[in-house]
Amino acid sequence: MSTSLGDLGEAELLHRLARFAPPGQLSDDTAKLPSDARALIVNSDVLVESVHFSDATTSPEDVGWRAVAANLSDLAASGAMHVDGITVGLIAPGSTPWSWVDGVYTGLTAALDRFGGALLGGDCSRGEQRSLSITALGRLSELHLHRGHAQPGDALVTSGVHGLSRLGLALLQNDPNLDGLSLPEDLKQASINRHQRPIPRLDALRALLKTKPSHQPWRAGGTDSSDGLLAAVEGLCASSRCGAALDRDQMPRPCGWPTGPHWDQWCLSGGEDFELVLSLPQDWAERWLTTQPGSVHIGTITAETGVIRWKQDRSPLTQPGFNHYG
Amino acid sequence: MSTSLGDLGEAELLHRLARFAPPGQLSDDTAKLPSDARALIVNSDVLVESVHFSDATTSPEDVGWRAVAANLSDLAASGAMHVDGITVGLIAPGSTPWSWVDGVYTGLTAALDRFGGALLGGDCSRGEQRSLSITALGRLSELHLHRGHAQPGDALVTSGVHGLSRLGLALLQNDPNLDGLSLPEDLKQASINRHQRPIPRLDALRALLKTKPSHQPWRAGGTDSSDGLLAAVEGLCASSRCGAALDRDQMPRPCGWPTGPHWDQWCLSGGEDFELVLSLPQDWAERWLTTQPGSVHIGTITAETGVIRWKQDRSPLTQPGFNHYG
Repeated sequence: MSTSLGDLGEAELLHRLARFAPPGQLSDDTAKLPSDARALIVNSDVLVESVHFSDATTSPEDVGWRAVAANLSDLAASGAMHVDGITVGLIAPGSTPWSWVDGVYTGLTAALDRFGGALLGGDCSRGEQRSLSITALGRLSELHLHRGHAQPGDALVTSGVHGLSRLGLALLQNDPNLDGLSLPEDLKQASINRHQRPIPRLDALRALLKTKPSHQPWRAGGTDSSDGLLAAVEGLCASSRCGAALDRDQMPRPCGWPTGPHWDQWCLSGGEDFELVLSLPQDWAERWLTTQPGSVHIGTITAETGVIRWKQDRSPLTQPGFNHYG
Repeated sequence: MSTSLGDLGEAELLHRLARFAPPGQLSDDTAKLPSDARALIVNSDVLVESVHFSDATTSPEDVGWRAVAANLSDLAASGAMHVDGITVGLIAPGSTPWSWVDGVYTGLTAALDRFGGALLGGDCSRGEQRSLSITALGRLSELHLHRGHAQPGDALVTSGVHGLSRLGLALLQNDPNLDGLSLPEDLKQASINRHQRPIPRLDALRALLKTKPSHQPWRAGGTDSSDGLLAAVEGLCASSRCGAALDRDQMPRPCGWPTGPHWDQWCLSGGEDFELVLSLPQDWAERWLTTQPGSVHIGTITAETGVIRWKQDRSPLTQPGFNHYG
């Protein structure tokens, strides 16, 4: 019989969780971070079982990895290249096996080891449903990306292809829509990998810092595509009070991606690809696109406030949206 | 019929929550804090309905206030006098009335207005059970209190009386143990007030900064009594590898507190009074006690590792503890 959180009790649980943090880090009521004059960037995400993850498609290690990746992707979308670390609020029923929590924290720390930062602290409580609340802390350099800093005339670019995570989920769920389709093995593997182990694009951010033309100011619009590519473009445009014209010929489709409206929809709105979606002065965009493998010039920012349309025929693109409470 | 979160949808909910933050604060994916060279202190707390609060005893405004107070009390227990603010991870079923969420955020921001700091950001999701995950950020001055910095010979002091919050809860629950007891009205009112609107002792911290004898280094042990006075002393002693002798004649009883083992138990282990529990060099303690109304010199730190006992008869004090997963 496996050990449950109820068997362990709170003190032993906290003792075991402390092993995932640097020595001594969890020995106080709070975490102390060393003095650092760089501006601090903070982001919080909530992940709830059967809303954001499920045992059927996500191992505990992947739950932890994805939670960190999603948070660091938000930090990256604001321009934070240095990651201080995360705090974790864990809620779980007493019947939850310790092995599940162990797996989640193994995944969390594996992602932190890969992308930087430490487990800084947290809290835990029993509750009816498993959830994780993560707060990530990072630091800005000269670069500060903001959802509200896009300008008409900017190039609209993204750090990579979209749709993989949604296809990965469908493959893991044995989605009947995929029956009879013969997808390339490479695509299938890349999709499952993207869904289970997404990568926050801190690398693309570093390239952005290096490629800025010296005559340009540090002004760039930015967000990430956690809720889908189209939602990211909509967010940029809404916050910046502008519009966007997307190039049909430059949809950031993965290699081997099938054609058809269903597949376009997954590419535009599948979500959870965690790529950067940036609005850059044209010369900065050109330099960045050249150095950044996989990046795509998907369109242009326009002065048509709130209008997201195709460049070719001016027809509007609408976004179904995702109502977390619906 | 009152509006539920499901009626609102996520976009409208986020729009309404943004009104509780400073203008523009929630317009980006992350929060940016201005550069500040002071060391950062971070604390996270999870509050779950029917574990940490219930509609029967706690209005939504009080849920919000208490959540902030608990977090800022942890910051204070580390010596953080300046509060940057908090992020909030909210989980709630779609059927939750908007009025409840409105009340919680009204309470959160009322506490922030009182003690300093702003709503910096957050996230929300549907889930089966209401919960709040709060992460608070603050800054240190010269003073850094640590649970592991108590030393044998130190005076053990606390910023105020204990037991009020537990009595307040009993009064709100119409606890039959109170039947037939005639408690002073002042005590009843103070108890309910302490339970509903606890005060993080940032004021007592300021006094600590002012009263340090110049020949003493900035070394002091500190924690708060969120889990009860005795648990706080145990935490200090465990982290500092020492013991404590408590003075029976100096139990920090509220004015008008009845006598008897049951009442002593509530004073020692009732919890949620959110007072500071400090281990200070004797001369620092004396100066602080003189300037700090309501503070009490409850005992002495000893070299008897792990032993918490009465000063008078050396009999051990044990603590029932609170297993959040039991």
